[in-house]
Amino acid sequence: MRMVDIIEKKRNGQSLSKQEIDEIIQGYTQNEIPDYQMSALLMTIFYEDMSDQEITDLTIAMANSGDKIDLSMIKGIKVDKHSTGGVGDTTTIVLAPLVASVGVAVAKMSGRGLGHTGGTIDKLESIPKFHVELSNRQFIELVNETGIAITGQSGDLAPADKKMYALRDVTATVDSLPLIASSIMSKKIASGADAIVLDVTTGAGAFMKELSAARRLAKTMVKIGQLANIKTMAIISDMSQPLGEAIGNGLEIIEAIETLNGKGPKDLQEMVYVLGSQMVVLAEKADTLDEARVLLEESIKSGNALKKFKEMIQNQGGDASIVDTPELLADVPYKVELPAKSKGFVQAMDADKIGIAAMMLGAGRKTKEDTIDYNVGIKLHKKIGNPVAKGESLLTIYANQNDLEEVKHLLYQTIHIGATGDEPKLIQEIITE
Amino acid sequence: MRMVDIIEKKRNGQSLSKQEIDEIIQGYTQNEIPDYQMSALLMTIFYEDMSDQEITDLTIAMANSGDKIDLSMIKGIKVDKHSTGGVGDTTTIVLAPLVASVGVAVAKMSGRGLGHTGGTIDKLESIPKFHVELSNRQFIELVNETGIAITGQSGDLAPADKKMYALRDVTATVDSLPLIASSIMSKKIASGADAIVLDVTTGAGAFMKELSAARRLAKTMVKIGQLANIKTMAIISDMSQPLGEAIGNGLEIIEAIETLNGKGPKDLQEMVYVLGSQMVVLAEKADTLDEARVLLEESIKSGNALKKFKEMIQNQGGDASIVDTPELLADVPYKVELPAKSKGFVQAMDADKIGIAAMMLGAGRKTKEDTIDYNVGIKLHKKIGNPVAKGESLLTIYANQNDLEEVKHLLYQTIHIGATGDEPKLIQEIITE
Repeated sequence: MRMVDIIEKKRNGQSLSKQEIDEIIQGYTQNEIPDYQMSALLMTIFYEDMSDQEITDLTIAMANSGDKIDLSMIKGIKVDKHSTGGVGDTTTIVLAPLVASVGVAVAKMSGRGLGHTGGTIDKLESIPKFHVELSNRQFIELVNETGIAITGQSGDLAPADKKMYALRDVTATVDSLPLIASSIMSKKIASGADAIVLDVTTGAGAFMKELSAARRLAKTMVKIGQLANIKTMAIISDMSQPLGEAIGNGLEIIEAIETLNGKGPKDLQEMVYVLGSQMVVLAEKADTLDEARVLLEESIKSGNALKKFKEMIQNQGGDASIVDTPELLADVPYKVELPAKSKGFVQAMDADKIGIAAMMLGAGRKTKEDTIDYNVGIKLHKKIGNPVAKGESLLTIYANQNDLEEVKHLLYQTIHIGATGDEPKLIQEIITE
Repeated sequence: MRMVDIIEKKRNGQSLSKQEIDEIIQGYTQNEIPDYQMSALLMTIFYEDMSDQEITDLTIAMANSGDKIDLSMIKGIKVDKHSTGGVGDTTTIVLAPLVASVGVAVAKMSGRGLGHTGGTIDKLESIPKFHVELSNRQFIELVNETGIAITGQSGDLAPADKKMYALRDVTATVDSLPLIASSIMSKKIASGADAIVLDVTTGAGAFMKELSAARRLAKTMVKIGQLANIKTMAIISDMSQPLGEAIGNGLEIIEAIETLNGKGPKDLQEMVYVLGSQMVVLAEKADTLDEARVLLEESIKSGNALKKFKEMIQNQGGDASIVDTPELLADVPYKVELPAKSKGFVQAMDADKIGIAAMMLGAGRKTKEDTIDYNVGIKLHKKIGNPVAKGESLLTIYANQNDLEEVKHLLYQTIHIGATGDEPKLIQEIITE
């Protein structure tokens, strides 16, 4: 079938067959289908939507478009975790050693950050000498020998997604549910996991601002996983404010260490237990979520989780002494408080804007070429629902320079103080089908 | 504004400003906006539609994208006529000398045909030595001196339309009303007419199969003309069957001569009077449509119209003796009748398929490179509503070869004979605002 006929078929409201979708993705990856036809199809999909079967066929075609990681050499059930993105999201760095410490094999591939949300790989690189570029063999050997390894994405995973994402970015076809879901799931499937735990964020700091949209995305991805024979579940979590208190690479590692010590922020700790319990059950290291949670709580209490984190740092060439002197990861000349201008309760804050403020300090990249300042960032002292006195510090800015008027202005703009304020519900929903 | 933001704006249901539309068309014509963004916008327009103001802005931007013909050197009000296309549509070849014979300045640019509908220029080229490539100066001088000239399109008229049409053709965005209307009207506006008479065809042989779609297109184009300060009106005419009885280049010239003689098919004759009266009134050569029609009828009766046709042929280097021996224009070795297989009334025929049958005989081009056989074609003896006896000839095939099974099969398939049959109404509606 000619591409123009496929576009017209979809445009006329008909579903595309698996064969048609395969031809499109193969043709596009091999540069046989031009961008101008692909962008017309993507816009048609934006308007016409796709059935669960079409999205699954699209996802699998994209996953098959390049290299696929073979994790079969790793013993046990490999559980991957993915978040649709958030500000100050330290979850992976806590979760990985935590679930590894109770016997779940953690073979984690992560990305770098772009824009106002940080990437796990960037955060780990704030640890001196930590090595994030493992060969496939090193990666698999490390997981088999020590139960844990985290590496940057290697190989040509889902090149169709890479090419389509670049095209969507310039043709106003980014915010289409079937395209978002297939983009995420194609990379996960190509990464070779046996089971996937998804954290779909919602609220001001998330891609999906509305709960209903987050729910549809979560349900769609769980459906794709099931149709692709991968055990998949999702939680929908609140991202109306940053998760935890730290935003910035070194600051988030400090926070991860505190959390692995049982002394982390309440919301991050809870998120880690909820996601971790799901991973432990999917990996068949516990029969029930309650049982799994007890295992994880005990591992933190006994120090095993933190020990696993130290071990991971050592295995990947990093300086593990940082776990005992974490303050060195946020060693900056300027630590500036932001005093509240009035008393009351924190009513709202915009996680996106706080992420942007951290980026302005140097914690994130505006373009792929920018370098990151690992020590700078923001440490929140107040979160939504907290009472605050006039003049009390809302947060500390960690900076390498003193000219902070613009950053302060942005932060004051985004933190709203009023007469009342309710703590948001962190785990909004759990989606298993 | 970046193109991606413009696409998103339109996609979110907002109207585009004149400035934004100008930037898009200029940028696209100058290859600064890539095809993949343009095709995404075109698909967005397919879904979101455009307001009359947006379509007008788009049309004018496209008309301004290249050369514009300056007809101001020609005295009087220049009235152009355009048909959205039909099979066996000889109207222009009759209309041009007819209205010229009553004093309307006819400066007509026409195109060649592609597919199953013939082009006026191709039809005129079936007249021996007729010259259709006039320079702009020749063209204007001829109109000023003799009142009439017909030429092929010269110059780079509306290159944005040319580029967009090629893109629409491969991205399933052809059948979008704002894009169809702006494509037609941009070329007419660039051609420099003061007034435009549109023939919007509807029915099986037309682009707009449904009357409601034809009405919307007609109203939109009339609105564009008015907003662009060009007096514009449209008739909606039936194209459920070919207009007149001849399909094929030479055969249609013969039919034009018969019609200019007052002996043409009833429907073609009526069409010519209706469109011609409108043109005469728009050119201010008569005050009312009735008065205009009397002028045209008298010109045919007196022989002035045919004389003007002869004059035009001579002016453009053609052999005018053909007017006295028109049968030479259909001089073929095989004239084959198609006898009716049953008796009754002609109920329906598909003008499209009859056009395709003529193309199969060699009367049209499948690709731009094909050459045309001017003598071949089809002459209908029965039209919708006519009674027919078993064995009576439905039509004559004019062919240069004897193997006509496929053509006959197609023709039998498309001409339906039943117990009753109603003559369709030729002029469906007249749209003046």
